[in-house]
Amino acid sequence: MVGTTGIRDAYNDVRTTCRKSFRSAGVGNAIATLVERSLLFLAQRSDRVALTSAVPGKTYFTFARQGTVARPVNRALFSDDIKAVVGSWRGRTGRVLPVDFARTAYTVALAPCLALELLDRGNKKGPATYFECLVGHIFATSLGAEPERRASLPILGRSIPMTMDFLFNTVEQQIHLPVKMSTRERVVQAWSHQRILDTAHGEGSYRGLMVLFSETKLDSRKLEVVEICVPDQWLIYQTTLAHMDRIYYFDMPVRYRELTETYPDLLRILPFGDCISELAPTDDG
Amino acid sequence: MVGTTGIRDAYNDVRTTCRKSFRSAGVGNAIATLVERSLLFLAQRSDRVALTSAVPGKTYFTFARQGTVARPVNRALFSDDIKAVVGSWRGRTGRVLPVDFARTAYTVALAPCLALELLDRGNKKGPATYFECLVGHIFATSLGAEPERRASLPILGRSIPMTMDFLFNTVEQQIHLPVKMSTRERVVQAWSHQRILDTAHGEGSYRGLMVLFSETKLDSRKLEVVEICVPDQWLIYQTTLAHMDRIYYFDMPVRYRELTETYPDLLRILPFGDCISELAPTDDG
Repeated sequence: MVGTTGIRDAYNDVRTTCRKSFRSAGVGNAIATLVERSLLFLAQRSDRVALTSAVPGKTYFTFARQGTVARPVNRALFSDDIKAVVGSWRGRTGRVLPVDFARTAYTVALAPCLALELLDRGNKKGPATYFECLVGHIFATSLGAEPERRASLPILGRSIPMTMDFLFNTVEQQIHLPVKMSTRERVVQAWSHQRILDTAHGEGSYRGLMVLFSETKLDSRKLEVVEICVPDQWLIYQTTLAHMDRIYYFDMPVRYRELTETYPDLLRILPFGDCISELAPTDDG
Repeated sequence: MVGTTGIRDAYNDVRTTCRKSFRSAGVGNAIATLVERSLLFLAQRSDRVALTSAVPGKTYFTFARQGTVARPVNRALFSDDIKAVVGSWRGRTGRVLPVDFARTAYTVALAPCLALELLDRGNKKGPATYFECLVGHIFATSLGAEPERRASLPILGRSIPMTMDFLFNTVEQQIHLPVKMSTRERVVQAWSHQRILDTAHGEGSYRGLMVLFSETKLDSRKLEVVEICVPDQWLIYQTTLAHMDRIYYFDMPVRYRELTETYPDLLRILPFGDCISELAPTDDG
């Protein structure tokens, strides 16, 4: 049986290795260990719970332990085949990303969040930090560049630093990469940062790519899953604040898929799997 | 002795009357009752606690009850003379605002927050809602207009609604009025909303006035008060996102006073008392 301290230790390893270098193999290994332990923990020491889905075309379940119910899991995207998931994750370094990367990525992203939640009820910081490390690592290895967490803005004759999620400055391109598990009311920050970069460095100097996990919300009494989407607000942000070039979801919300279909020239909200073709993986990872 | 239910009832009265009309005399009366009961409660049923101030030139204390310590109180701005405060508040309707309005306003704003916090540890929603009602009422009565909570934005050939703190549309002017007890990381929203209004309705069509209470933070173990300010971030927001015409504080932070002195043409961050001259009070309140 996997020990609960093993999960916390592995989580701390992910954080520590990221602090040194997001693109190091050490991060990938630490993630693999954490995912393996988390999936073992979920299989051995928690119970599966069926959930009602109010989201058309999607089925959700989750895990529970000692009265704590974790966040929803999309059945079609989650794999509990530990060997396959960890193998696929370890195999992803190198020039070719596997075809089932979206599914691997979903499980790799979610399993540690579920385990951390069940170990420490109401722990939101842990999952958010882990997800940031994961996405930072995927982009850093694929782009062959270390991300920065601070923009330097030339303002009023000074260079003023400002903390943002991730910035990549490679020879080919500059990317602004906001990363969040879900958006809720805070997403305006991502568009604002894009606008600040546009104004300070010139329109389009940084390409805005936003990576989000999902927009699911669990009613823990009714055990029902809904998706919280605000398409009209996003239209406003995208037309009046700044242009976010791509928005990727690990679990693509139905209403944002519809929004993209209605305004294909304005917004591109896509499943994270489609991100693979965007990235140019290198051998450094 | 004032009953604790009396405070909760008065708080609910403030919310209910605001829902009907922010500029009604009913709101002013409900606020008076709540302030009176809160000050009585603080005097009779809580203890004064001395605080160490790490803020140059300011002295703070607070109230505590049954192990709960309330937020900091600026000694120079707070009055526990119940009759004077409530009398001054009631006397403010009409064309002339009293000279000591800043001090009255500070006490009227803070006393209910302290009482609500002591009655219900960790209650942040109550104080925030009350503060919004208070500022909404002051502006509504002074401008002789009811605020709106929704902007209508002409985008993509549609009119898309968006919730904002307050919007005033009078014959003379249009005002965007974000209101927050303190800013922390969420303040970017206020500048973003201003930018959205600028882009959708034309630059400067809405004058941005932001009203904030303070930026104090209490270390509850050391009982020490600090002010959390991010002047460089504000410079970035003000130069790259939108122009906020005035920012008013009930308890003006030292570093924002210095920022205004350094960049007088760019930013105007002022004590709330100075707001009086901005407003054109009417007899409708």
